[in-house]
Amino acid sequence: MTSVTLDQPSSTVHDWLLRKGALAKAAASELAKASSHTKDQALLQAASELERRAEELLSHNEVDYRRAQEDGATPTALDRLRLSPSRIHQMADGLRQVAELPDPVGEVVDGWVRPNGLRIERVRVPLGVVGIIYENRPNVTSDAAGLCLKSGNAVMLRGSASAIESNSFIASVIRSSLAEVGLPADAVVLVDDLSRESAQEFMRLTGIIDCLIPRGGPSLVSSVRENATVPYIIDGDGNCHVYVDASADVEMATRIVVNSKTQRPGVCNAAESLLVHAAIADEFLPKVAAQLAEVELVGDERTRAILPDVGVATEEDYATEFLALKLSVAVVDNLDAAIRHIARFGTGHSEAIVTRDLESANRFVREVDAAAVLVNASTRFVDGGEFGLGAEIGISTQKLHARGPMGLRELTSVKYVVNGSGQVRQ
Amino acid sequence: MTSVTLDQPSSTVHDWLLRKGALAKAAASELAKASSHTKDQALLQAASELERRAEELLSHNEVDYRRAQEDGATPTALDRLRLSPSRIHQMADGLRQVAELPDPVGEVVDGWVRPNGLRIERVRVPLGVVGIIYENRPNVTSDAAGLCLKSGNAVMLRGSASAIESNSFIASVIRSSLAEVGLPADAVVLVDDLSRESAQEFMRLTGIIDCLIPRGGPSLVSSVRENATVPYIIDGDGNCHVYVDASADVEMATRIVVNSKTQRPGVCNAAESLLVHAAIADEFLPKVAAQLAEVELVGDERTRAILPDVGVATEEDYATEFLALKLSVAVVDNLDAAIRHIARFGTGHSEAIVTRDLESANRFVREVDAAAVLVNASTRFVDGGEFGLGAEIGISTQKLHARGPMGLRELTSVKYVVNGSGQVRQ
Repeated sequence: MTSVTLDQPSSTVHDWLLRKGALAKAAASELAKASSHTKDQALLQAASELERRAEELLSHNEVDYRRAQEDGATPTALDRLRLSPSRIHQMADGLRQVAELPDPVGEVVDGWVRPNGLRIERVRVPLGVVGIIYENRPNVTSDAAGLCLKSGNAVMLRGSASAIESNSFIASVIRSSLAEVGLPADAVVLVDDLSRESAQEFMRLTGIIDCLIPRGGPSLVSSVRENATVPYIIDGDGNCHVYVDASADVEMATRIVVNSKTQRPGVCNAAESLLVHAAIADEFLPKVAAQLAEVELVGDERTRAILPDVGVATEEDYATEFLALKLSVAVVDNLDAAIRHIARFGTGHSEAIVTRDLESANRFVREVDAAAVLVNASTRFVDGGEFGLGAEIGISTQKLHARGPMGLRELTSVKYVVNGSGQVRQ
Repeated sequence: MTSVTLDQPSSTVHDWLLRKGALAKAAASELAKASSHTKDQALLQAASELERRAEELLSHNEVDYRRAQEDGATPTALDRLRLSPSRIHQMADGLRQVAELPDPVGEVVDGWVRPNGLRIERVRVPLGVVGIIYENRPNVTSDAAGLCLKSGNAVMLRGSASAIESNSFIASVIRSSLAEVGLPADAVVLVDDLSRESAQEFMRLTGIIDCLIPRGGPSLVSSVRENATVPYIIDGDGNCHVYVDASADVEMATRIVVNSKTQRPGVCNAAESLLVHAAIADEFLPKVAAQLAEVELVGDERTRAILPDVGVATEEDYATEFLALKLSVAVVDNLDAAIRHIARFGTGHSEAIVTRDLESANRFVREVDAAAVLVNASTRFVDGGEFGLGAEIGISTQKLHARGPMGLRELTSVKYVVNGSGQVRQ
């Protein structure tokens, strides 16, 4: 096992990335041919090794944690960085779960025969080399590597400086597990030059990275849009709405709004905004407010006429993904107004309606433009695990390639396979 | 019908594009809801109008043609620019054919029920606004608009300056046809500021253009990679190979090589390079060379030992998409060497093997990384029409979203639709 380190001066970052990228690309060709059985062996081996070497990993993590403490990291950041025996166990279990998922590679997506006898098939193949840029959670290193390897891809991982010791150790464990089953260790490359320059160069590895998935905040996303020359998938913000229609079951609507907002407020599929049909607002708003005592509500005039203690919602509030126990509220005249509000302020992530009216449900589903639209269910279900994909590498808010939770299938491409018997074109 | 003109100074290109883009985006929302019947009516109406107003179109085209002549355009460029009654008829027929294709919008791609009773479906939806940057053929204006409209998308078209009169007229005919059936004319926006600045701004209409498809040469593609901030699909070069295996039927191999190279040499799915297994080279090369009298051959030493009149092939020749009656040739030791050569010089477009050996066919299909791999068939079949997609908007050489010929389906995205009965997440 070679550990991935960069001791050259930063002017050679580009060369280093190209060299490592070429190794990853060669490894990707090998991995594309590997059997499911061999890939699964590597994942299971990595899971066992992570658990067997948990003490070592914890001590590396301790180094990261102390440095982050000294650097004045926030409690949230420190919590995300911190590993524990149970978190390491979860990482290992995640790899085992991915090993159990069906291998998407080789699936014949569809096929047909042309009048001239050509047999045409579309066959699922790996993307090649997947690049991931992510922030401080070290578990992303094993989660992302596991999903990429299972789907036959090599992966280049660029984590955060704060987690470098932990990430390096995790990557080295996975690399040795690959080597142990006869797969190329370079199918997992950790980029551990964490300069701004290396991030820029990483996004521009045209011909090496087949798909870049940035997992981070708006500044990372906008840097990718500005600078990337490789294809990428945006895992964007979730300014998610719940719209309570005139005909909604008030008890169900309350349950769904409370769950969407509070079950885990810091994640992208949590609701950030509540829209209520005017006909039901007098009855519904006091009931839901009573269940949202821990949540800061801000609302429009019509909301505040019913709930006088609620603060004023600005336009910016309606546009904000709070990721916290705060909720913007608006009373709307009808379904059309709700759809217009969502079109204006939504980010195309997850949008829910609570209704008993079939026509309202159908129109909402049809007219709201988002990765996921939900009828009578919490926005919190928009998640690879909850959808039954087995695991997720992110949630796409763009429309190309993948939209919504991305599992193994979204880490693949297709190849046309054409079988003939000497046909030529007239 | 409003004709799309830009008479502001170029400093306002950005504002003009934003304004037009907002109109296109609003039109996209309408079009996403339109029935197949209404969209088809618009296409049929546009087809009739193009034919009815053919004389007017020809006179606009004459203006473009004369200006191009004065500007010293090449005969090929002039030919591409020139419309004729029969070419106009073909454009109209193209729109009628697209009207007859099944509408991809609304297709339920897959669906399942979760243990908690949530019903999950993936439903095909339009992308939204598609941007096309293309070069001098005016027929692309109607072909691209037809495919985008049928798949429920608005389209922003940026053609070339050389075809501006023709493109403007074609776009205006389609816009009036849309209006006539009650669809928004702004579902087709022609960008007729053709400054370099407008191209740059066009690629950066984040939040407006959901998918950009550049149709042009390498400099356009690299400009898109460098500058675009919107998602795009690369319709790239085709440095396509035919590999003649040791076991190939010599007559079939000759037919396939000749067809792949000469049936239409100026297009991306034409073969540019011939690889021949050493065991069959002595027999095959003289036979195929006799059929390629009109083609300039360049080869490696082993080729030239058999065909002494053939010129020397440089590394650059092997890397070049000639798009002309020129073919690079190499003799290879075995299938592995052929696969390595293709991995090194290929552009991931279309790669063919001629063989009678099952194992060779299987390995070639599995190990060659390209949008299309063909066994015993001409590379010229890699085309939306030939594959049975009905029409094509381009051929993707990237792995994200679409790979190979792109038809109506590739102009769509999906949306998750989740139906519940009050479920919340635990």
